[in-house]
Amino acid sequence: MTPFDTAIRNGTVVTESDQFRADIGIRAGRIAAIGEIGMAGEEIDAAGLLVLPGGIDSHCHIEQQRADGSTDEESFTTGSASALAGGTTSVITFAAQIKGQPIGPTLAAYRASAARAMVDYSFHQIITDPTDAVIHEEIPALVRAGIRSLKVFLTYDASHVDDRGLLRVLAAARRAGALVTVHCENYDAIGWRTEALLAAGHQAPKYHPWSRPAVVEREATYRAIALAELVDQPIQIFHVSCAEVAEEIARAQARGLKLWAETCPQYLVLTEGDMDRPGFEGAKFMCSPPPRGPEAAAGMWAHIRRGTLGIVSSDHSGFSYDSARGKRAGGPQASFRDIPNGIPGLAARLALLFSEGVSERRISASDFVRLTSANPARLFGLADKGRIAPGADADLVLWDPARRVTLTNALMRHAIDYTPYEGKVVQGWPVLTMLRGRVAMREGEVLAQPGDGRFLPRGPYDYIRPSGVLAQDFDASAFA
Amino acid sequence: MTPFDTAIRNGTVVTESDQFRADIGIRAGRIAAIGEIGMAGEEIDAAGLLVLPGGIDSHCHIEQQRADGSTDEESFTTGSASALAGGTTSVITFAAQIKGQPIGPTLAAYRASAARAMVDYSFHQIITDPTDAVIHEEIPALVRAGIRSLKVFLTYDASHVDDRGLLRVLAAARRAGALVTVHCENYDAIGWRTEALLAAGHQAPKYHPWSRPAVVEREATYRAIALAELVDQPIQIFHVSCAEVAEEIARAQARGLKLWAETCPQYLVLTEGDMDRPGFEGAKFMCSPPPRGPEAAAGMWAHIRRGTLGIVSSDHSGFSYDSARGKRAGGPQASFRDIPNGIPGLAARLALLFSEGVSERRISASDFVRLTSANPARLFGLADKGRIAPGADADLVLWDPARRVTLTNALMRHAIDYTPYEGKVVQGWPVLTMLRGRVAMREGEVLAQPGDGRFLPRGPYDYIRPSGVLAQDFDASAFA
Amino acid sequence: MTPFDTAIRNGTVVTESDQFRADIGIRAGRIAAIGEIGMAGEEIDAAGLLVLPGGIDSHCHIEQQRADGSTDEESFTTGSASALAGGTTSVITFAAQIKGQPIGPTLAAYRASAARAMVDYSFHQIITDPTDAVIHEEIPALVRAGIRSLKVFLTYDASHVDDRGLLRVLAAARRAGALVTVHCENYDAIGWRTEALLAAGHQAPKYHPWSRPAVVEREATYRAIALAELVDQPIQIFHVSCAEVAEEIARAQARGLKLWAETCPQYLVLTEGDMDRPGFEGAKFMCSPPPRGPEAAAGMWAHIRRGTLGIVSSDHSGFSYDSARGKRAGGPQASFRDIPNGIPGLAARLALLFSEGVSERRISASDFVRLTSANPARLFGLADKGRIAPGADADLVLWDPARRVTLTNALMRHAIDYTPYEGKVVQGWPVLTMLRGRVAMREGEVLAQPGDGRFLPRGPYDYIRPSGVLAQDFDASAFA
Amino acid sequence: MTPFDTAIRNGTVVTESDQFRADIGIRAGRIAAIGEIGMAGEEIDAAGLLVLPGGIDSHCHIEQQRADGSTDEESFTTGSASALAGGTTSVITFAAQIKGQPIGPTLAAYRASAARAMVDYSFHQIITDPTDAVIHEEIPALVRAGIRSLKVFLTYDASHVDDRGLLRVLAAARRAGALVTVHCENYDAIGWRTEALLAAGHQAPKYHPWSRPAVVEREATYRAIALAELVDQPIQIFHVSCAEVAEEIARAQARGLKLWAETCPQYLVLTEGDMDRPGFEGAKFMCSPPPRGPEAAAGMWAHIRRGTLGIVSSDHSGFSYDSARGKRAGGPQASFRDIPNGIPGLAARLALLFSEGVSERRISASDFVRLTSANPARLFGLADKGRIAPGADADLVLWDPARRVTLTNALMRHAIDYTPYEGKVVQGWPVLTMLRGRVAMREGEVLAQPGDGRFLPRGPYDYIRPSGVLAQDFDASAFA
Repeated sequence: MTPFDTAIRNGTVVTESDQFRADIGIRAGRIAAIGEIGMAGEEIDAAGLLVLPGGIDSHCHIEQQRADGSTDEESFTTGSASALAGGTTSVITFAAQIKGQPIGPTLAAYRASAARAMVDYSFHQIITDPTDAVIHEEIPALVRAGIRSLKVFLTYDASHVDDRGLLRVLAAARRAGALVTVHCENYDAIGWRTEALLAAGHQAPKYHPWSRPAVVEREATYRAIALAELVDQPIQIFHVSCAEVAEEIARAQARGLKLWAETCPQYLVLTEGDMDRPGFEGAKFMCSPPPRGPEAAAGMWAHIRRGTLGIVSSDHSGFSYDSARGKRAGGPQASFRDIPNGIPGLAARLALLFSEGVSERRISASDFVRLTSANPARLFGLADKGRIAPGADADLVLWDPARRVTLTNALMRHAIDYTPYEGKVVQGWPVLTMLRGRVAMREGEVLAQPGDGRFLPRGPYDYIRPSGVLAQDFDASAFA
Repeated sequence: MTPFDTAIRNGTVVTESDQFRADIGIRAGRIAAIGEIGMAGEEIDAAGLLVLPGGIDSHCHIEQQRADGSTDEESFTTGSASALAGGTTSVITFAAQIKGQPIGPTLAAYRASAARAMVDYSFHQIITDPTDAVIHEEIPALVRAGIRSLKVFLTYDASHVDDRGLLRVLAAARRAGALVTVHCENYDAIGWRTEALLAAGHQAPKYHPWSRPAVVEREATYRAIALAELVDQPIQIFHVSCAEVAEEIARAQARGLKLWAETCPQYLVLTEGDMDRPGFEGAKFMCSPPPRGPEAAAGMWAHIRRGTLGIVSSDHSGFSYDSARGKRAGGPQASFRDIPNGIPGLAARLALLFSEGVSERRISASDFVRLTSANPARLFGLADKGRIAPGADADLVLWDPARRVTLTNALMRHAIDYTPYEGKVVQGWPVLTMLRGRVAMREGEVLAQPGDGRFLPRGPYDYIRPSGVLAQDFDASAFA
Repeated sequence: MTPFDTAIRNGTVVTESDQFRADIGIRAGRIAAIGEIGMAGEEIDAAGLLVLPGGIDSHCHIEQQRADGSTDEESFTTGSASALAGGTTSVITFAAQIKGQPIGPTLAAYRASAARAMVDYSFHQIITDPTDAVIHEEIPALVRAGIRSLKVFLTYDASHVDDRGLLRVLAAARRAGALVTVHCENYDAIGWRTEALLAAGHQAPKYHPWSRPAVVEREATYRAIALAELVDQPIQIFHVSCAEVAEEIARAQARGLKLWAETCPQYLVLTEGDMDRPGFEGAKFMCSPPPRGPEAAAGMWAHIRRGTLGIVSSDHSGFSYDSARGKRAGGPQASFRDIPNGIPGLAARLALLFSEGVSERRISASDFVRLTSANPARLFGLADKGRIAPGADADLVLWDPARRVTLTNALMRHAIDYTPYEGKVVQGWPVLTMLRGRVAMREGEVLAQPGDGRFLPRGPYDYIRPSGVLAQDFDASAFA
Repeated sequence: MTPFDTAIRNGTVVTESDQFRADIGIRAGRIAAIGEIGMAGEEIDAAGLLVLPGGIDSHCHIEQQRADGSTDEESFTTGSASALAGGTTSVITFAAQIKGQPIGPTLAAYRASAARAMVDYSFHQIITDPTDAVIHEEIPALVRAGIRSLKVFLTYDASHVDDRGLLRVLAAARRAGALVTVHCENYDAIGWRTEALLAAGHQAPKYHPWSRPAVVEREATYRAIALAELVDQPIQIFHVSCAEVAEEIARAQARGLKLWAETCPQYLVLTEGDMDRPGFEGAKFMCSPPPRGPEAAAGMWAHIRRGTLGIVSSDHSGFSYDSARGKRAGGPQASFRDIPNGIPGLAARLALLFSEGVSERRISASDFVRLTSANPARLFGLADKGRIAPGADADLVLWDPARRVTLTNALMRHAIDYTPYEGKVVQGWPVLTMLRGRVAMREGEVLAQPGDGRFLPRGPYDYIRPSGVLAQDFDASAFA
């Protein structure tokens, strides 16, 4: 029997359902054996460490083209470094349709950029303009190309889609076999409140959450679920911010709908109060939906434990404080409406969730694996990811559950000039990240090279639970 | 002591909370005394009969101008006759804003037409185009003129208002002190499904309910409630069709929102199966939302008993079968989309509800009074109506609870050439209707004259229950 | 036309559904006419006052024999005075079965005592020992005698009934046509916790609420509802203390069960903190279930407004501080277990509810009438009470909504040596109480005489709403 | 590297969260490696088969002493054979306290009997008489001996415990660190209804479900949860029969309580109609709670998918038709009350659940593993069971997912003379069962020997989720 390429020995393997002491043998980038392992070319000692499946961040914005012609500061190179530094080995980022343009060439450009990635990657295709060509030709083509998830925004001037657009996308996804993910906030309500606030002279960052209170997110979430129910199409709700929204999701899940939801660390550790920090500091915490009141996190943890919220992603979406948030938006004189939304979190996601969740005994280590790796892989059809099992990609993280680290922006390794978590102390930290059998990060040093990442063509997501709501009406494939 | 103008003797008076044997003395059109009554100029014997407050139909379309330039076949004269024949003494009908035109002159025209009414009347002002002038000038002017309720359609090509429009109307109503009433169905979803059905060749009346299933009504209801919650403005949901919609309303009411809802007899006695009658007969039953499945009525009665649904109106909206539904729409070759929605019910409303409700022992006679008279008066600010008490208008109905009547179109006294309830046997029937002390209908004969009806200027609706949701944010009067 | 005996002029009449200015003519103890009233022998001016139906306190303990052989300090004479002082004209008090004895003679003794009452009265018959004779003979006899409500305690050493006993009473009530009322707390759980507290040396009054937390009340409430559901028998839950209990009741009501519930002022204005007052003062506030935490009242008001809680009674149950609570129980050395439960409230009930409810704009004056008079009359079959309508008993209260009064024990006119509401300022106060046409209290002076009160034989309670749960199984009359 | 004792090659390994192709290497009764496996002494080919963790039946009655002095017909030898035949490798059976006797000696007798088992085993200790000695000495001793779960019956003449008894057991379990499992049906209600049925001459088996309708189970379930909440002690509800019960459990779980529940195949594939089969056949299907109406299974599957019901056990409890159900009970002349409750299901459990669940695509194969093996191991502290991972016991089942088998009693290998599933066709069947590395069953042939099974001392069950309800009150360890 030939030796393994690499052996990871003496660690405690954590899967989403189990923990056990075992060695792991790796060959050709895959996990070849677990347990009593023979000789290996390279030996890695994991004594005292947890061995986790590499993190999968199914919601991050990297090198994305914005409607104003600009591009995210975070490139695939810097974004990959940040991912690896935090223990993440795969990302699903966004390819954005530009209104008036076909998807194909734009996507090709994204794929070209992503060729520099140092982590594996896939895309959610954002649909902003569901033309007939998009619906009937491009969405099926996406699925054939292994991109099996679409994203729809229900808010934002440049990207929101109205109910008919959402219905068209849902029906197209149903025919093609794609999942639809949705950013749920009511466009009109936010615009109307924003104008009222600005008219009243309220322009500071702290008014950002006032412009989009929870009811606005709850309404849009309910609507997205109802329209998906009408079409009998599975959906995932992005970045749920508070329990009153999660409760509506839980009710719909209890009815048997094919419905999933995620949240992000910012809704567990930040609050609306952060946007009221002195000076213009609040701008560093602005994302949408915004973090809520100080009591919100408790309700979110409850819904994480209940399973309502099955994924914790970062929604990494960085705009530097000194440029985008400051200069480009007009500086402290800017109104909250002009400050780009989104905060960086790729590197901090796992450490924050582990620390607040596992170290604080709110969830188990297996829950952590499920939320950050196994569920994203399952829901988005990454068959070889999210698992520590023979045949799976050897995407692994050696995690020190006892190490206490003070978060700083330097640790984040991203292109952004700040982290909203600066100074926060976490317990639990990734010490080594391996991508398909190769050590890609060790003690904060990124060892991977641009191009090490691969595009992940995705097969069908699998779920067994029938909902059947309205499907019996008549052949839904008649819809377009 | 001067004698009364009229005495009604020996009847059983029914109020929304009580039943008792008493005589009623009337002077100058008002109830002057109840109980032991002295002499009167005119004596009416009500032995064996119930004496009820006159019905108030807070939702009926009369002589309304339609977007296509046509006008409802039901005129104020025929509509009044139908109302009186059925025991109804007051109606709240609709004044429709025509897009691109100011409200004032249009409303003046409505008021001129209504001068021929034989029942008392008020208007809900339909807002289809919430321009700045409408929001800031015309809505306050309406309230000053005693018209304190606005209506918004969330569906229909010609009249639907988007979420921002609804928010503007809600905020304007809040500032002015008006109630907002809402037709809740999702515009885009109906359009999308309708097109799919027609594309598939499904154009018969029976596809009308397929084009707007319950989830579409439920979504829009939830949205209307959420936006009203955002503005902290009371609303009434019109014509709830089924329990899954009512259940969402009940949840919101349980949270303490200022939220009311009505239903109509068609949702208690008709079903979607009626639209599948042979030939083109199904067209006679088309209204929106449509009646639902055969099991729906049971759930509706439950919500009537729980109080979720506090008003039963007719949504009288007649289009004759031979003209509007047939010829004008194109006849049996017409698709369901082209057939005007709405069915006549002004005259049948009370008899249907009494028969199905009181005679079938699903509700009490006092419940009946509450649903058809006391609650509409209370919610819409008709201070002198809906009550049998000293000082109230002597709008009374003598009702024979034992009489069995087979409904025919001739009994309806309306301008429409059919009734969807043709042949239905009811138990309980109005034998005399009195408007402000004058006998206006006796045994089916209408004795009133055009112009007997009066415009009812309405005071503030009164409710005590604070919701406070979001109101504390900041001064909502900043919104527009 | 003969003159009325008495006329009340210029007042604002308040019924449970209406308010209007009207005079009231009284003849032979009954309301003869309302509105324009002719001559009267006696004129009472009610200008500036509300005219309310006399309060009905459907839950008070008067001159009740206790298991230890003692009798309540409150006699029918003193209790009546207290009732009249507070605006209450009818009481339903308790006749307690003594274990091992037949009901008949005991009840006869109660009726003999009650002959000294100065308000009208009826009884709930407490069943502590549901023997075959009680079930098959005495309960039917009670109903024939016009006593149509039974009470069962699920807790207290001397009076609690087990589940089988409750089932037997429920089935007997179903056959006979009586209502069953239930004190819901889990007997075993209270005993177990009490022993643990005492074993740990915790004997102060403040441990009383620790011995019976809300979950203990919620469990027993759920159980009583479930067993009533099994038998298909209507019940009323007594003295609900907090929203988590009310929420279970609301759920069951929403399913259509024939289920009612009451609360008492102590759950709206007192808290568990009152039992932690210095020294032995806390003993003055001990009742069961105990008042809950400081946030409980808000939830209770919400359930009052929703209608979950339809009656507000006093649960007047007085034991003087200096004798029963102190000396007889052993004084400050006594453990909370030995201090008799129950606090006086007959006189304070209406003023407290009006002040906290109507004056604070939590409920309307009509809601007040419904909760304190109309609903008790309706639920317990007092056909001539609770209403201001021709033919009803002229039980009336003239109420000054503006008067501010500081509560003192002297104002309570009861036999007890304290009031738990000492020093509380209320707005709204009864200035005259009339029982069947005779002024029985004026400005605090009781004018009635012992024996003025009458026994009220009660007809069937009327409710229309079928539940049908399990009733179809087989003939429930087979049960015993 | 030394060779493995055994290798299972070419199978598809199924864990509760994953499926993958892998070989399994076994050494010294444990799984030593998974994946690429070196040489082995024995080779087993699993091509085309699923490799599952051995079934764990956490609820079965074997050789149990009954209150009447009799002993279950199922011995540890026959019961083990039945378990192995069905793919089950571990059982948790019951040691029953006999009232008036200490637990110790009785348990020793059980352990002596169990020494003949051919599967691994543990016990739930039934507490029927929670004396001070039991509470303070024997329960702690049980936990020290590795028996960490107690069972309480809320019904049955011979074994039911009242609320105080349950509270004492809950508190004792909390102090000792044991789980409490509960049979939830209301004792009094069943007795009362049973007597009424028998008095009315209704004694056939079909009246068994009439004697204990769902509301009786729902009430007791709610009560058990409430009392556990009071004590802050984790519990498991046994054999949930229908959705209305599961819904209450789901509500409590959503509040964060440490609460689990199981169901059994009889509630998924049998109905109350089976007890109405001709002649005395219905007696074969009598268990408690009884199977419910024909629509019940759909609701149960929904709750299985939601996770409310986390375990599917057999509640194997066999009484032969010809002896216990017939002769001993008195034969067809016996009333339903006299027929022993409980049906055999040890061998059929896995095949029924796989067929109805996985083959019918209601659940996934991983769900199947979770419900039948992983969750029982987790909840009851069987650290080496329920998993396919290095270090775990090599308890494995080779399962043919395609094989169709007609169930017959001969296949069940139990001591009972019938199976309620006779003639049912299932898809999916165990072809080989391995206990700690040794083949114990192959193609229906039991190869194990009496004594091959081992007692499983159980460590603490682990759960992370705090409920904290009431725990803060004061030190609960004061309770007894």
